[in-house]
Amino acid sequence: MAKKKPLSFFYVVLVEPKNSGNIGAVARAMMNFEIEHLYLVNPCELDNVCYARAMHATALLDNAKTFPCFNDAVKDFDYLVATSSIESKTDKRHLRNPLFLEEFSENIFDVKGKVGLIFGREDYGLFNEEIAACDIMLKIPTSESYLSLNLSHAVTIVLYSIYLQNAYIPKRRRAMGSLEKQKLFEFFSQLLDDIEYPAHKKEHTKIMFKRIMGRAMPSKWEFHTLMGVLSKTLGTIRRKQGK
Amino acid sequence: MAKKKPLSFFYVVLVEPKNSGNIGAVARAMMNFEIEHLYLVNPCELDNVCYARAMHATALLDNAKTFPCFNDAVKDFDYLVATSSIESKTDKRHLRNPLFLEEFSENIFDVKGKVGLIFGREDYGLFNEEIAACDIMLKIPTSESYLSLNLSHAVTIVLYSIYLQNAYIPKRRRAMGSLEKQKLFEFFSQLLDDIEYPAHKKEHTKIMFKRIMGRAMPSKWEFHTLMGVLSKTLGTIRRKQGK
Repeated sequence: MAKKKPLSFFYVVLVEPKNSGNIGAVARAMMNFEIEHLYLVNPCELDNVCYARAMHATALLDNAKTFPCFNDAVKDFDYLVATSSIESKTDKRHLRNPLFLEEFSENIFDVKGKVGLIFGREDYGLFNEEIAACDIMLKIPTSESYLSLNLSHAVTIVLYSIYLQNAYIPKRRRAMGSLEKQKLFEFFSQLLDDIEYPAHKKEHTKIMFKRIMGRAMPSKWEFHTLMGVLSKTLGTIRRKQGK
Repeated sequence: MAKKKPLSFFYVVLVEPKNSGNIGAVARAMMNFEIEHLYLVNPCELDNVCYARAMHATALLDNAKTFPCFNDAVKDFDYLVATSSIESKTDKRHLRNPLFLEEFSENIFDVKGKVGLIFGREDYGLFNEEIAACDIMLKIPTSESYLSLNLSHAVTIVLYSIYLQNAYIPKRRRAMGSLEKQKLFEFFSQLLDDIEYPAHKKEHTKIMFKRIMGRAMPSKWEFHTLMGVLSKTLGTIRRKQGK
């Protein structure tokens, strides 16, 4: 699958993070999802806790850029994405009218240029004037009874969702083909005959087997293993029955 | 939208977590995504750090069940899901032949009964015999160069993905209808006429406007606001031109 857009166009911007562990955890998540650029607006100190939580992503912390204020950090971006758990309940209030994460991720690769993913303070999130400066407000669906995600969890979910759009996800490999399916079902049907399965239940049970295999979507290898078991079973029964 | 399956069928099982902060962070994420049941296999102490990281989810920690070993914790489940970042590269090795998260989430609601989502140790993950005891192995797609997610991040992504299947995500509300679109494009076309926009560029620019609006998918309210601006613009121009 062709890559849609290099992930290097995405920047994570943390606005006034207060918990150094969160910053480290964000760095680790960024490396997990191949996002390299971290901008920090007036952050707390990147102490040992921060570096410990970053695990293998300490270089990412070393390369993070620090800015004294929001406006300085965001001035070079082509597209700014505010994240917030608080959405407006009416369409009339444009400011916090959100786009939900899935729809966002499906479409963000069409946007040209540098994309800043802006995450607010652990306690107060983003201020209204910061959200107003962004092109869209993004919302991660969460429970109405507890909306607010941990900062590094929010970043992780957004990066995962973006990464998914671009990642090569192997579909179930070498799925069993239709000829193989037919053979498998024939063998199963023979088995029902050989064990003298009640005739009036046969059709129903064959369909059930077909459905189970349908949901399980076996690979070619799994098919070969199953066929091996079935064929050995049939052979054993027939020998015992002196056929 | 009808709920597919109550989220109360899902249980998070942490196997020998060593970092109490991770357990607290997992509890918070569970509450964010409406998953209530936490099982802990031989965990570290649930200390103050754990409770601090749980934020509003301390009751979930209080209600967590603790088990001395893996087998005790999983014996009552109908379906066991192992999570691991390490997958087998060949279809022949069934043990770590994974199902990827998106496909999993789309299908897990068809499974009847109690589902255990099993997460391994921070350092060693799940042992082979634990994975073998599970019905499937689940993989969260991550970078080949840094596969291993933080424990609470892994839980968060899986729960988010499950929650999404069941959540009511409002589609863009009260989208602009086709009659409204037509009106908007008419107004825009009139504007181009009134500002004596070069004739040879008109068609192209009208299409561009249409495309922009198509991608933006304005709501009815946004439509009314845009129409207001355009109609006032046209009025102003016409007055100035003495029309």
